Parts: sequence; C-alpha cells; structure tokens
Amino acid sequence: MIAVQREITLPAYSRGFHLIEEEVFSEIPELRQVKIGTLNVFIKHTSASLTINENADPTVRTDFESHFNKYVPENAPYYRHTYEGSDDMPAHIKASLLGSSITIPITNGQPNVGTWQGIYLCEHRNYGGHRKLILTLMGI
Amino acid sequence: MIAVQREITLPAYSRGFHLIEEEVFSEIPELRQVKIGTLNVFIKHTSASLTINENADPTVRTDFESHFNKYVPENAPYYRHTYEGSDDMPAHIKASLLGSSITIPITNGQPNVGTWQGIYLCEHRNYGGHRKLILTLMGI
Amino acid sequence: MIAVQREITLPAYSRGFHLIEEEVFSEIPELRQVKIGTLNVFIKHTSASLTINENADPTVRTDFESHFNKYVPENAPYYRHTYEGSDDMPAHIKASLLGSSITIPITNGQPNVGTWQGIYLCEHRNYGGHRKLILTLMGI
Repeated sequence: MIAVQREITLPAYSRGFHLIEEEVFSEIPELRQVKIGTLNVFIKHTSASLTINENADPTVRTDFESHFNKYVPENAPYYRHTYEGSDDMPAHIKASLLGSSITIPITNGQPNVGTWQGIYLCEHRNYGGHRKLILTLMGI
Repeated sequence: MIAVQREITLPAYSRGFHLIEEEVFSEIPELRQVKIGTLNVFIKHTSASLTINENADPTVRTDFESHFNKYVPENAPYYRHTYEGSDDMPAHIKASLLGSSITIPITNGQPNVGTWQGIYLCEHRNYGGHRKLILTLMGI
Repeated sequence: MIAVQREITLPAYSRGFHLIEEEVFSEIPELRQVKIGTLNVFIKHTSASLTINENADPTVRTDFESHFNKYVPENAPYYRHTYEGSDDMPAHIKASLLGSSITIPITNGQPNVGTWQGIYLCEHRNYGGHRKLILTLMGI
C-alpha cells in the first residue's frame, strides 16, 4: 500500500474562485506511482472551500462568485455572527455548501478526472490570506 | 489490502434526479470481498453530480428538481457564461452544490448505508448524454 | 495497513447545528495509531447531514440554521413530498446541500484539521431522534 501525505500552503488569492489543480498535483509527485487509489484534498479553514468544476472558460468562475454572493448575501438581517466583518458569516455558509474536501480517483499514475474538470479554491473572504491544504494519497 | 477501480458509463438520463445504486453496485461485485472499507463514486463531468438521499418516494426527487431550478435559476441576469445554453451555467452551480463524488462505507461485503438511502445521479443538463463514473473500492 | 470501522449512535439532538467532534474522535481511539490516513464519517440518514465549520462562536451555528431555513423553506408551493410534515422535504434538500459524509486527514495519530474546524451534526428535522454514524479509519 502507498500512503503519502503533504501539507501545502497556497499563495493568498483574491476573493473568488481559482483553478489550483497544477499547484496541487505538482506537490505530490508520488501520485505517478499509484495504479489504483484516491487523492483527498482537504482545506484547513472554515471560510474557504474546495470544489471541482469547469476548467476552461473563466466566466464560469466569475458567475460562481456572482451566484453565491446573491444567495448567501452579506448583511442578512438574521446574522448574529457579525463582528468579524460582513464577509465572514457568508464565508462560513459558502464553505459548508461547497465543502472542505474533495476526493479524486487516481488511475495508472494520473488523476482520473474529466477533460473539463479543474479544482477550484473557493476564497470567500475579502482578505483570506494563505490557505493550507492537506493532500492525502492512498492506494496501491 | 483490496483496491479495485472501474469506470462505468451510465445510459443517458433525462434532466432531474435518478436512483442509480443498483447500476453502481452491480458493476463492482468485488465489494462483497471487503470486510472494512469505502467505495468512492466520482462523476467525470461538471454539469451533473452525485448525492445520497431518499430512495422510496419519487416525489422527493421531483421536489429536488423544482427546488434547485428555483434557487439556481436559468437566465440569471448576472451570468456571463451563457453561450452553451440557458441550462449550462445553472448546471455547473448545481453540480458544485451537490458535489462530484460520494464516499460510502463498506462493511462485511455490503454497502453500509441507511434503509432509506439511495444514490442519486443529478442530471442538470437538458441533454446531458452518457455520464462516466469512476468507482474506487479500497479496504481489507 | 490499518482499517478500523465503527458504528456509533448519537443522542437525539434538537433541530439545528451541533458540534460533535469529541463524540466522534473518542469512539475511535485507534486513530492514535495512524501515521498517515483518513477518517470518513458517514451519516446513515437522509434528513440530517454532516459538515465542517467554525467550532468557537455558537452564533455561527444559529446563523446556519437561520440561513438554511430561509433558502430551503418549509411549505414551498412546489413541494409534492409533504405527507411526513412540513420539516421533512426541506430536511432532505438541506441534507444533500451539506452532504452525508466528511473525510478528515489523520497525521501522526491526530485529526489534521484547522484550529477553528469542528464537525457539525446538522439536524434538519424537528424530532430527528438518534442518528447513526459509520466511522471508517484507513491508513498506515
């Protein structure tokens, strides 16, 4: 069995949705040795998240930002957790809607994802700073 | 350790939510040999998704379709990614809200899920066509 | 390879969002023996869910309840699945939005999560009763 784990720190991204699959895969070259397995990518934060979506047209990513801002608004009258700024509570909700980890199949040393699938870092804070990810590769 | 992986192609489903657990489990009979483990089911697309929900009353699945159509509408004025049709950008958002993979515990050769839990293929496009899934079974 | 699995039954929680990481981790002491691995926590129900979010200020959890009640309302005119009570169909939708399982990295015998990350049981029913979880620990 192969089990490899690595913590990586991303550069600070602006609020929005960003493709990070190259940063992720380049940090765990051992995945080339895995014939059958999975890579779990976990974000150690509660106001940023990870998802898989279209890797080609950047307007998909800006439309994500527009959509989530409308349906998880800032300054909702029912928020009580407001002292960290108007972008904080929506960030927590967005993070749980999108999720704190993704699991990707690995096949013959390659991520076995669709042609159009990329990994999005979903940065929900205005100034989220560096974000830490844990990569866990398991397989044979 | 047991590690088995298989790519399967689903028949084309209509837009909406569909139970597919029988198709999934029948394609990976090796799960009967796993005492303790997990089955990850991953969809290789960005406009369809997977979730686990009620397997009995079909109105749950039609209510899902109604709900997601209302809260992730077509033709939202803020969409910029529109050239693939009015059902395309909402499909991407729905796919990330619901997720691209599920992980199911396997116990003594059986999926260890609740009595009422089924696997939904969530087809968000009008004509999504065949969808490919990667099944990754790992355990002992 | 280490593979350990356990089914646990939570006490009945009230409708809302509750921190349960202590109950989860105390039930699987074998995670102290895992150098590199993952813990998957799966809920065997379709009207309650699991997510990871802020573990400090309890108003984050009450704001979650307020938000999901507004955006996944009871008595929506388009619901057809209504015979189990007005809290039932929204519970199914909330459960799929948040998800039925989480996967946490384990490093040197400890859950490798952020300082502010806790595990939420998301109880979407008024009287959900006891909820069963399957914990699956795999690694080396």
